Amino acid sequence: MANVLVFGAGRSAGSLLLELSAYCRKHGHVLVVCDAHIPSWLEENGIQHQIFLLDHESSRKKWIEWSDIVLSLMPPALHLSIIHDCIQFRKHFINASYLSPEIEALRPQIEATGKLFLTECGLDPGIDHMSALAVTKSIKEKQGVIQSFTSFTGGLIAPESDTNPWHYKISWNPRNVVLAGQGTARFKQEGSPRLLPYHQLFSRTFSMEVPGLGTMEGYPNRDSVSYMPLYGMEEVSTFIRGTLRYPGYCAGWNALLQLGLTDDQVLIPEGIKTWSELLHALLPHIPGATVSQRLSAFLSKHCSSDPTLLEQLHWLDLTSDRPLPPGSITPAMALQALLEDKWKLSSQDRDLIAMQHEWIVQFSDGRKKIKSTLLVKGKNQHQTAMAQTVGLPMFIAARLLAEGQLSLTGLHRPLHSLLFEPILKALESYGIHFSESEEEV
Amino acid sequence: MANVLVFGAGRSAGSLLLELSAYCRKHGHVLVVCDAHIPSWLEENGIQHQIFLLDHESSRKKWIEWSDIVLSLMPPALHLSIIHDCIQFRKHFINASYLSPEIEALRPQIEATGKLFLTECGLDPGIDHMSALAVTKSIKEKQGVIQSFTSFTGGLIAPESDTNPWHYKISWNPRNVVLAGQGTARFKQEGSPRLLPYHQLFSRTFSMEVPGLGTMEGYPNRDSVSYMPLYGMEEVSTFIRGTLRYPGYCAGWNALLQLGLTDDQVLIPEGIKTWSELLHALLPHIPGATVSQRLSAFLSKHCSSDPTLLEQLHWLDLTSDRPLPPGSITPAMALQALLEDKWKLSSQDRDLIAMQHEWIVQFSDGRKKIKSTLLVKGKNQHQTAMAQTVGLPMFIAARLLAEGQLSLTGLHRPLHSLLFEPILKALESYGIHFSESEEEV
Repeated sequence: MANVLVFGAGRSAGSLLLELSAYCRKHGHVLVVCDAHIPSWLEENGIQHQIFLLDHESSRKKWIEWSDIVLSLMPPALHLSIIHDCIQFRKHFINASYLSPEIEALRPQIEATGKLFLTECGLDPGIDHMSALAVTKSIKEKQGVIQSFTSFTGGLIAPESDTNPWHYKISWNPRNVVLAGQGTARFKQEGSPRLLPYHQLFSRTFSMEVPGLGTMEGYPNRDSVSYMPLYGMEEVSTFIRGTLRYPGYCAGWNALLQLGLTDDQVLIPEGIKTWSELLHALLPHIPGATVSQRLSAFLSKHCSSDPTLLEQLHWLDLTSDRPLPPGSITPAMALQALLEDKWKLSSQDRDLIAMQHEWIVQFSDGRKKIKSTLLVKGKNQHQTAMAQTVGLPMFIAARLLAEGQLSLTGLHRPLHSLLFEPILKALESYGIHFSESEEEV
Repeated sequence: MANVLVFGAGRSAGSLLLELSAYCRKHGHVLVVCDAHIPSWLEENGIQHQIFLLDHESSRKKWIEWSDIVLSLMPPALHLSIIHDCIQFRKHFINASYLSPEIEALRPQIEATGKLFLTECGLDPGIDHMSALAVTKSIKEKQGVIQSFTSFTGGLIAPESDTNPWHYKISWNPRNVVLAGQGTARFKQEGSPRLLPYHQLFSRTFSMEVPGLGTMEGYPNRDSVSYMPLYGMEEVSTFIRGTLRYPGYCAGWNALLQLGLTDDQVLIPEGIKTWSELLHALLPHIPGATVSQRLSAFLSKHCSSDPTLLEQLHWLDLTSDRPLPPGSITPAMALQALLEDKWKLSSQDRDLIAMQHEWIVQFSDGRKKIKSTLLVKGKNQHQTAMAQTVGLPMFIAARLLAEGQLSLTGLHRPLHSLLFEPILKALESYGIHFSESEEEV
């Protein structure tokens, strides 16, 4: 019998908690869920929970000492204190966030625990690594030489729930949506390292065909380069990891960026109370022109004259008297509040996860493009596609640990076949499986 | 007899140290200069000095305890430990840097010392405040209602030393030149608060006529708004503080920014060894095109087709095989190293400080535009215009303190007539004086 502790009961936690709860009940394990706010559906599903604040050190330590396996769905910055306690009390730890330099620095202490600390075990990062490495392994077994690898993932809306000119609703952390891509992206393309500054990120996008969705767009993630050695692809000529969107989204987002609305540093001056006043403050002055006219002129000059752009921005009420949220806020904070409303996923909406890897490989008998594509739709409000794809890999890793089927210890991403093979196999039984296609190129 | 301690013997310290040294010798005061690197001209001028590191706490405290007046020309981040010691030992303190929130938080402790802590007492900030407030005071005495106030300052090169297509050489901290304007600028224009994002800062510039120089350009400083109450100008319709440049500089700098060369976050990938390779990494791919052709295409699309732009960038060797500095560096760090070489002020060059305030004022007998303009040229390598205008206000404040002519205590900027009137008067004897002009508008 194992004690299982989960930190985080937020919007991506549904699938993890429902599966973990059913599994624990069946096998006599005890599950406790901790968060500052506990949603009512936990109670409705009979899931044990504790309301608590992570920085309440003594109760955090008490619960971690009690547990055998700790899972965290907290925001990235909040994992560190949990990891410190898991080291102190020698507990297994699993999360779905990027392995930060701060966690990397704890590698020796983590190894000394003799337990598994598994990071990046969600969707992106997570399933992207696992599925890419599984196909890469089979390519290498066939003596294929990989020349190009690209991988794009998007948390999207299912076509039947796509009801706005952005073709987007928010299925994950809205702050990450607003701050996406800030910094300069690094990747490799056609033999050369490449840098793509933030202010060009959404206007120099990549186009790709995704079976089942059609032509899609993507922009590179901030740092692709550091994953080349982790994927065993130091020698490939092109290597890009990025974010997938429906066509039109990036052009619209580029307009918000060029306007200055994604800035999270400057405070909006006190006198500005409405969105049209904020646009008035940001747009170049044109004597006698309305805010809408100035917006059109700005878009023509800095973005494009495509009428879709104006439609997207008007649909967001950017030139209306809609009030800004009160308080000392940045444009990015105002935009986040607006988008949380405008791009709200309703209880009837179905979200969609799309992931596509593409390899160009030289085999002894020819050059091939191999595509591996995942499409997952949400089942309901708690088991969104996002919740399934983020939470189920974590659940499966916890289950394998509880069953003694994972012998690895120390700090890991799911880059080892001892991790990705059983997890991918188990994901298939939840309908999370990739379709592959090949063509000569 | 007073003991005077100066931290900082760098490139802006010449005028302060030469004047202070002569003054101390004449009046029986003792001057000691502390820095990690002591330039040889101090020795040649018989100025007492100590080589020392600011973070060597015991010697820092020993010297501050010894002194009566402490002046600091250290970089902004390094003032704080000095100020803490000046509070502990109750010593007067003077610098030429912005009053930071960290220093503001020490206001009660500073007031308890009964000593004067005078910040922003250099050029910009410093002379700009003092000269603006002196004219503003006389306007208000004449019952004028200020409708608009703009103030632009530039550390420039004298026309006779202007030998490059940027019309610029570096006369102050080169890192500040490269990182200038990062963030979104806040100001007020024609009755409305305005925000100007960094990626548009150098393409939406202001034009102005400066007597003696002709048509010049300026871009707003990051935060003008917070100076409105300090200048007693809460009610004005337009309020902008900014940076002055010769025409053409901002368009060129905008190209460097759009290319991504001012990014100080991302590390240049390891394989990139030359400037043309860095441009290759940053420019959009065009099959078969050279880096120069891609640069031209990029400039036409994102900046302008003005041939001056290409001339400026080629003059910087951006498309050449010139090696990048070694090590893990950002584009901004590489650019700084390049500009420190290309924009080097030679010993024969004369630098130039230009400052211009403009008021639009409603008087009972009409509406007037009042201009107040300062032009200061460098005398020699140590007494550059920058060194004179940054250092002499600090020297004069120290002299007034030594002579018991400043009765203010606590934390101040030179915004009080008890400070700006005697300092401006003394600056005139060094040839630092403003020319005023008025016209009906």
